[in-house]
Amino acid sequence: MNICELILKLLEEKNYSELKELLIEMNPADISSVFEEIASEKIPLLFRLLPKVLAAETFVEMEADAQELLITGFSDNELREVLDELYLDDTVDIVEEMPANVVKRILLNSDSDTRQMINEILKYPDDSAGSIMTIEYVSLRPGMTVEESIKRIRRTGIDKETIYTCYVTDDNRFLKGSVTIKSLLLAEESDKIADLMDKKCISVHTLEDKEEVANKFNKYDLLAIPVVDVENRLVGIVTFDDAIDVMQDEATEDMKKMAAIIPSDKSYFKTSVFETWKARMPWLLLLMISATFTGMIITSFENALATCTVLTAYIPMLMDTGGNSGGQTSVTIIRALSLGEVEFKDTMKAVWKEFRVSLACGITLTVCNFVKLLVFDRVEIMIAVVICITLLMTVIIAKVIGCILPILTKKLGFDPAVMASPFITTMVDAISLIIYFKVASALIGL
Amino acid sequence: MNICELILKLLEEKNYSELKELLIEMNPADISSVFEEIASEKIPLLFRLLPKVLAAETFVEMEADAQELLITGFSDNELREVLDELYLDDTVDIVEEMPANVVKRILLNSDSDTRQMINEILKYPDDSAGSIMTIEYVSLRPGMTVEESIKRIRRTGIDKETIYTCYVTDDNRFLKGSVTIKSLLLAEESDKIADLMDKKCISVHTLEDKEEVANKFNKYDLLAIPVVDVENRLVGIVTFDDAIDVMQDEATEDMKKMAAIIPSDKSYFKTSVFETWKARMPWLLLLMISATFTGMIITSFENALATCTVLTAYIPMLMDTGGNSGGQTSVTIIRALSLGEVEFKDTMKAVWKEFRVSLACGITLTVCNFVKLLVFDRVEIMIAVVICITLLMTVIIAKVIGCILPILTKKLGFDPAVMASPFITTMVDAISLIIYFKVASALIGL
Repeated sequence: MNICELILKLLEEKNYSELKELLIEMNPADISSVFEEIASEKIPLLFRLLPKVLAAETFVEMEADAQELLITGFSDNELREVLDELYLDDTVDIVEEMPANVVKRILLNSDSDTRQMINEILKYPDDSAGSIMTIEYVSLRPGMTVEESIKRIRRTGIDKETIYTCYVTDDNRFLKGSVTIKSLLLAEESDKIADLMDKKCISVHTLEDKEEVANKFNKYDLLAIPVVDVENRLVGIVTFDDAIDVMQDEATEDMKKMAAIIPSDKSYFKTSVFETWKARMPWLLLLMISATFTGMIITSFENALATCTVLTAYIPMLMDTGGNSGGQTSVTIIRALSLGEVEFKDTMKAVWKEFRVSLACGITLTVCNFVKLLVFDRVEIMIAVVICITLLMTVIIAKVIGCILPILTKKLGFDPAVMASPFITTMVDAISLIIYFKVASALIGL
Repeated sequence: MNICELILKLLEEKNYSELKELLIEMNPADISSVFEEIASEKIPLLFRLLPKVLAAETFVEMEADAQELLITGFSDNELREVLDELYLDDTVDIVEEMPANVVKRILLNSDSDTRQMINEILKYPDDSAGSIMTIEYVSLRPGMTVEESIKRIRRTGIDKETIYTCYVTDDNRFLKGSVTIKSLLLAEESDKIADLMDKKCISVHTLEDKEEVANKFNKYDLLAIPVVDVENRLVGIVTFDDAIDVMQDEATEDMKKMAAIIPSDKSYFKTSVFETWKARMPWLLLLMISATFTGMIITSFENALATCTVLTAYIPMLMDTGGNSGGQTSVTIIRALSLGEVEFKDTMKAVWKEFRVSLACGITLTVCNFVKLLVFDRVEIMIAVVICITLLMTVIIAKVIGCILPILTKKLGFDPAVMASPFITTMVDAISLIIYFKVASALIGL
């Protein structure tokens, strides 16, 4: 019997004391997984069995639909108890997911300071550092001693999301540096913060893209990053757990866009059939209609094809190989762009590399194909030449386009991920067919 | 003038004092980026200008080729100085990248304890938790007081990779729980560790897949995770910065595999043209040869096609739409598998969902296409029916295959990511053509 079945059994038997003991031993993330599995009418009963702190920790981990269900069922008192235990950035996350009437109840049951701070954070654009930051950080002054600092952390630390990196500001809230708890603990009690702090402290602006923020965590191995306004005044921090979420979400989003899907942040089974249909249809339809052009190219060479039907048999091979070659390059470049390995200034360097790679790949494929055509398929030598020239040119063009398009798309301010395989495939299909028929008419005079 | 040009200028002018001042203000990750850009003969000179600690921190961030260059040029003394400053997991990472003669020098210049520990970690399989762990953690005993614990951390913390989560073990090194510095600082000096520690502490086994380890960091928002052996004895910890690297690497790897590339861990411009060719050729060649089957199907219907050439024009549209539909599903499922959102037991649930989505997508596409065929292309109504029936069946089959194949592949112990778009495309191409010609011969009697 797995843990979920055991919980359901205890719930059915109304054996609440044993159930409570079992739940107390569990991790919040695991309890929230149980909530995902059980029938929704049992959620409020089970939730009320959790002690206050564990309840709030579990609440944060739950999916939006279960949270909404609980909030709707909460008395104002219960709601306030849960909200009191939450960190501000988690409250903001919840507010962003809830319908208007639930948001109103949340705001009504928060104290006025919190309400104001929630509203502040909600003002930042969706993808910005400001939207994922929290304002619950420890701030110290350059003139404080280590002893004073540790006292301050002891006094105020309980409500802070992290105390491991503290931020040093002056009287006007300008960010002066950061100091880790590790360096405080290893220093003498009388040492001054000004001497201990790291003045090279990396920070981000409130409006900076959250993907850039995540890349900085990765590059500098940070636990938290301070967020400053245009005047370099400290307004909040982003912690590593939020940065990890951003990284995973961005990777998932990029993969979906590369596969011609409009991304959403819901997990697979949480997305309804209708939502999935909505996310997949636009690109399928657009690409289907684009494929019409490929069809038109074939139609315009219809008569030529009828006189030399063997050429038709190699259309799928040429189209697939072109699409795969272009897809390899575009996916590599898109990922390198999002990890910051390739930038606009590297365009020529990247094109030159892709040209050489495509030449190497193209020649290998052409040689293999030529042998196959003559030995196994036993086509006429001129037909084999036509196919091979087309193949080589297609691979080169596909890879060069697959390299340039994503870089240009990003430069123009759009998301390069939509320039991946499906889009490139459709383009390369048309190009390869035109080359095919042009080469054929030149060499075997269709 | 950017920072790199400024550094080169100062280096040229032999203005070492100003250069030193400039470097001291920089972050190790940024200095290592400069090393990437400058000519390799200048690297040792510039490196020797860095103060000891900054030098070691920069060394860790550098690419393997620059590290090798430096180690080769180091005197034994210099090498020992750098090695002394490194955390053990970083040393192991470096050892794994270096050629045998450099590894020998590193081991010769490490003290015998470190040498033994490096060899221990090197024994763990490449993708395991053991291979990315460090053994430099703080361990406490349940009977210690907060005061004693903080003293211990002060004494030994300097060499530990993290002090923010400490691990509680008994006399036999069995893991009993974890305690954060935050809870130590907020507790009374006389409190006992046994009362403060979190007994629910999440741990991983040495042989657990590192992708699973990364998923646990994400699920439980951890700063570090303890690694235990089969008997639950603590042997090391994995810190969040290594987990972030694993997440990003795994996402990049999956994307490359999905695009029919054999993944490597080198960044884009660090991979030579030859290596890129080697990574891309196998799948291109295999998929090109597979496309032969698609060609053979067309050949076997050559005579039928010659009597009804209009059918040829719709081959690209059918193949592309099938490939795109299958690709959407396979990429979604592959990502959901790697994030743990979908498991083998969910197969039927996923197939049922994909079936409904494919029906919805298929019907939409078919209706649009039918109108287009009759109104714009003005084809005969029976031809339009043949094309539309094929389209609907192709979309459904593509999505169902795209769903089942990755799940089965994972169940069989292989990497599901290779079952993505290019592979599915080739399969769906063949299937859609067979349907096309079968439906055509049934309805219009080719």
